[in-house]
This record gives sequence, structure tokens and C-alpha cells, in this order.
Amino acid sequence: MTSELRKDPVLGRWVIISGERSRRPNPFRNYTATIESAGPCPFCPGNEALTPPEVLVYRPTEGDAAAWNLRVVPNLFPALRIEGDLDKRGEGLYDLMRGIGAHEVVIETPGHRDNPASYTQEQMTGVIHAYRDRMMDLLRDGRFRYVMAFKNHGAPAGATLAHAHSQIIALPVVPVRVTAELEGSERYFEYRGRCIYCDILSQELDDPRRVVVQNHHFVAIAPFASRFPFEISVLPRKHEAFFWGLSQDQVEGLAEILRDVLRRYHLALKDPPYNYIIHTAPPGYPTPDRYHWQVEVIPKLTEAAGFEWGTGFFINPMPPEEAATRLREMERVMDVPDGHLLEGRSTGSGGA
Amino acid sequence: MTSELRKDPVLGRWVIISGERSRRPNPFRNYTATIESAGPCPFCPGNEALTPPEVLVYRPTEGDAAAWNLRVVPNLFPALRIEGDLDKRGEGLYDLMRGIGAHEVVIETPGHRDNPASYTQEQMTGVIHAYRDRMMDLLRDGRFRYVMAFKNHGAPAGATLAHAHSQIIALPVVPVRVTAELEGSERYFEYRGRCIYCDILSQELDDPRRVVVQNHHFVAIAPFASRFPFEISVLPRKHEAFFWGLSQDQVEGLAEILRDVLRRYHLALKDPPYNYIIHTAPPGYPTPDRYHWQVEVIPKLTEAAGFEWGTGFFINPMPPEEAATRLREMERVMDVPDGHLLEGRSTGSGGA
Repeated sequence: MTSELRKDPVLGRWVIISGERSRRPNPFRNYTATIESAGPCPFCPGNEALTPPEVLVYRPTEGDAAAWNLRVVPNLFPALRIEGDLDKRGEGLYDLMRGIGAHEVVIETPGHRDNPASYTQEQMTGVIHAYRDRMMDLLRDGRFRYVMAFKNHGAPAGATLAHAHSQIIALPVVPVRVTAELEGSERYFEYRGRCIYCDILSQELDDPRRVVVQNHHFVAIAPFASRFPFEISVLPRKHEAFFWGLSQDQVEGLAEILRDVLRRYHLALKDPPYNYIIHTAPPGYPTPDRYHWQVEVIPKLTEAAGFEWGTGFFINPMPPEEAATRLREMERVMDVPDGHLLEGRSTGSGGA
Repeated sequence: MTSELRKDPVLGRWVIISGERSRRPNPFRNYTATIESAGPCPFCPGNEALTPPEVLVYRPTEGDAAAWNLRVVPNLFPALRIEGDLDKRGEGLYDLMRGIGAHEVVIETPGHRDNPASYTQEQMTGVIHAYRDRMMDLLRDGRFRYVMAFKNHGAPAGATLAHAHSQIIALPVVPVRVTAELEGSERYFEYRGRCIYCDILSQELDDPRRVVVQNHHFVAIAPFASRFPFEISVLPRKHEAFFWGLSQDQVEGLAEILRDVLRRYHLALKDPPYNYIIHTAPPGYPTPDRYHWQVEVIPKLTEAAGFEWGTGFFINPMPPEEAATRLREMERVMDVPDGHLLEGRSTGSGGA
């Protein structure tokens, strides 16, 4: 394809989709997710004393009382501190406040070598439950205006430890990207009287070129104005502004589709580094009919950072239609023992 | 220092400045700027046929007629195409247009191994002249709403070729970051009746903890709400909205301070990968009293990308005051034959 400029319908930013650029020598860096670590792993069973005490633990229903399936602990090197008040102040024309917040680590599995792409449905369900449990608990603290869950997989994606984990951060301010999403979807709602994400879902399902996979509760698409090669957006079919509003059945459905997406990445891109981020409305958001929570998944394959950091202008060498096709094709080589995740089926069970 | 949340006064985004985090094992990845390349270098003298014909060339005043000091050529793998009209259209709720624009490469030097940190004053002056010349030429094309010059140094910063080069892109739309800067500085101007960047300059010079170096025309500071370790903003002292409005004397002054900043990086951070981006008002910007062009310089030392891409929320483990101190200390080991760039002197010559 020739090069195209596409506008993100929510955020209003333009992206250059340039198939041309992928013909350069080595358009994608040869990244691996592997992390070499020195010393004992603080996330392994037996080394629990190397982390702060847990704030949440899921244990097997029987067996050793000290055994665990998942732990959540405060970050040993927190970006934010839980104690104190915000102490907002000015310094000439600058504004600042104390770095009050929470920064927690979700240790997703006791297995040091477990890769999220190979999690069982039960493991992934536990991870999603942990996000919801911790977010709901942190939101009881009135100092926090936002809470987010995200994962860095592999060193190029920002992880510093190999043992599978994700992070939860509670913030005293709403991040600028979230504000921009709220503003963009409010603008659309005022004009059309509908949720923009619901309209996106409907348009994408009508012409499924960018649909990667779907189940009863969720649809994974390669966004029209993808900033990154193989970027995916996982949208719940049912309109809901708050991530923590998801039902037990939806937890299962999200676990299922997230496992599926990560397996496709693993096969198509050879265990790439990636990030996923849960986008939700802030607590107390007064117009929940105007925002739609979602999960953004971004493989880390290119390194055009500085230019994009400086401009907000992205060049993506992989058209999302082609990315979706390649990820759909993984169907053929995927291990789908439960048969749930067949592309194009919208009736797969959302239950376990 | 304990962790702090700081608000970018122009963009309104918050940054976590967290000295704590730099105590983690390996807070900065051990990046090098080195790029291994296979085959003949298309940017070396003798290989001119490997690039499209040049759109600008600076030649030595005497000697071989084929010799050159600097060439600008169209990118062989352009993100945007120069031919055609924009063909703006919709696809359901999506907007798109043809990828019309210019994408040029500034081959900064004939020397394959030249490092910008070691450029002579004359070499760097030539590079800045080339930016101005090409930007002014591209702006005569009425289809372009914005033009930008930027540099990627080293593979982790997005460069794919080792031979020193930078890039110029002309765009049919204004990038979102530029729009946000314009909006932020307009908001401040409406409230205070002054340019926010002029006020920042004045406050930073009154309390020079974040001033890295200055000369007659420019001041290099570590921004209050730096997103990245050792980030630098180079601001012209004289208010001016458009980069291409700079005088011959200012070209010399910018070359001087940019060389100085890059030498400090080279010494303090061991030839780090980095990006710099020239931020300017768009052509025809109607209220030039409200915006102030500047150069943003970002070393690539951390890799927390996905989270920040997803949220716009940054965690910076290096307080800018400490970064400025470390970069100022490079004074002691720097080769300053012309004695111009002594920290704290505001009277250094801006001329060659």
C-alpha cells in the first residue's frame, strides 16, 4: 500500500501508516523478551522475605498452607509513596506535589519460567481478578484520582525482572492520555449521542478486516490508526466505563481473549517484548455513558522513540489490516484445546 | 530526594520525579550508540549514486568540484510521498488522507565515523543552516501545514544507519504535541499577557539550579518536569515563534550550544543514543507573541516505553537538578579551546 495518514477517532492524533517503510533493511529490531538476572529471584517461592509483605495472596484450595498461586506486594523501589498528604504547592510558575500514591507488583505465578502466553485459563483469570481486587481496594483511599494496571513483558518493554509480573499504580492525578480519551469520547457523544467505542466496535464487526479474534464478551482489533506494528485493542462488547465493573463471566472472557492474543504474538512475533495497559474511566466519573474501558496491547518491535516522544506523531510501517491478517493466520498453528477461540466466531463461550 | 509529582507548565502533564527509582539495580540500560552496518554506506563520498539526487548540497569553497561538506537527499524509504494531492476522505467514523509530505535526510558530514559530539563549529553551523534552508524551501508548498527537523543518534534512538544524519519531515497536519504546546502557551498568555517560555527562562536564570550551559543567544536547561533522565531544553533568549526566523548570529550561537550539550552527553553518559527535535510554531501561526521555538534533546537511557505510551504518564528516576549538576561538572574535563562555553557565563560570544 502507499502511505496513508489516519486520524485516531478518539484522540484526534494523526498516524502515518506506511507500508513502504517496512521494506527497509531490518525494519523491526530483533528483540527478545529474555531477561538475564543475577542473584536469587525475589518473586520465586521460598524468597518471599525478599519482597515487602503481601497485600493480596491467592492460595491453592488445598495442600501446603504456605503455597501460593499469585501474590501482590508493594514495589520495593516505588515510584510513589503511600504515606503522607499531597502537599500541593507552587515554585514560581511551576506546580508540584509530593509523590503520594501506591505502586504494587502482581507476581502472577510461582513458576519462574512461566510465560503469560502459556498461562492456563485459571492462571490468567487469577491475574485479572487480582487487578480488580487491588484496584477496588486502592480506590477506597480518597487521595487517589486514578488507578491503573499494566504489564511490561521483556527488557525492551521496560521489565527489569524475568519472573512474570505486572504492576498497579494509584495516582493522585488523572494521566493526560486518559483525560484526552475522556475529552475525545465526550466530544463525540455530544455530537452523535452515542459512545464512540460502541460505534467503533460496530463498524469493525461490520467489516472485519481489522478484527483479530472475538469471543462472547470481547473483541480484539488492530486499531484503524495503530501507532505501533501489531498493536491491539481489546474492547468489551457491553458498554461499561469502569474496568472494575466487569462481571465474573467477563473476567473469564477477558482472560480467554488475552491469553489468545498473547499466544498469537508468541507465535507470529517469536515471544516479543510487549506492554498491555488497562484503560478505565477514573473513579466517580460523572458521565459513564460516554466512556468505554478497554485493554491496549503493544508489542515492542520498533525503536522510533525520540521523534515520536517529541512530536506525538507516529510512523507505523505495518498497516493494521495486514497485522490483523497475520495474527488471524496463527489460528492454523495454535493449540486451541478448548476450541473456544476460532476467528470469526462470535458465539464462543465467555465462561471457562 | 523523595518522590515528587511535577506538572509541565506548558502541556499540563504530570511527571513523577523519583530519585528512589535510580537506586534499583541497573536503572539505566547499558546502551551504546554504535550501529553495525552491512554493505557500502550510502552516505559516504563516492556512493552518492546510492541515494536519490540531492536537493541541497554545501561544497567546500575550493578544491574538488565533486567534494561536499553536507548533502540533503530525499529519504529512499520515505514515510510520506511528495507527489499528489491529499484526497481527504472518511471511512465510516474514521478520517484519512493520502500520505503526502516530504521526508528528507541531512547527511551531515562526509566522514563516516564523525560523531556530532566532535563536530567543528563550522560543521554544526552547516547542519543548522541546512535545516533552515530546507524548511524554508518546503514551506513554499501550500499543502504542508508543518515542517520539522530532528535527529536520531544510535540504534536505540531509532537510527538505522551509522553515518551521521538527521531528518526533515514536512507534514499536511500539525502534530498533536505542537498543538498542545500552542494551546498551553496561549492559555498562559491569555491569563498573564506574557510568553510562558520567556517566563520560564527568566525564572530558571534567577535560580540556575537547572541551567546546564548558556551563551549570548541560548540557554540550555534541564526542564522542571523532565520526562527523561538528562533531558535538555535549549531556548533562545530572544522571543521568536519560528525556528526559521533565526539570524546568522543565532545560527552560530545554536551551533555552539548544541555542540556543547552533545559533548557533555558524550562525556557524562559515554556516547549515549539520543534524539533532538526542533519545535517551532507552524507557518502562518497568527499569534507569534505566544509561542517560543526551542530544541528538545533527549538521551535514550531508559526503556519504560509501553506504560508511558499508554498513559502519557512518565516516571523519571533522575531529578533534573541532579542531571544539570552532573552535566555542568563536565566542564572540568571538556575540551574548550575557544573558551566560549563556561558554565554560568552569559556573555560568551554567540558568533563563531
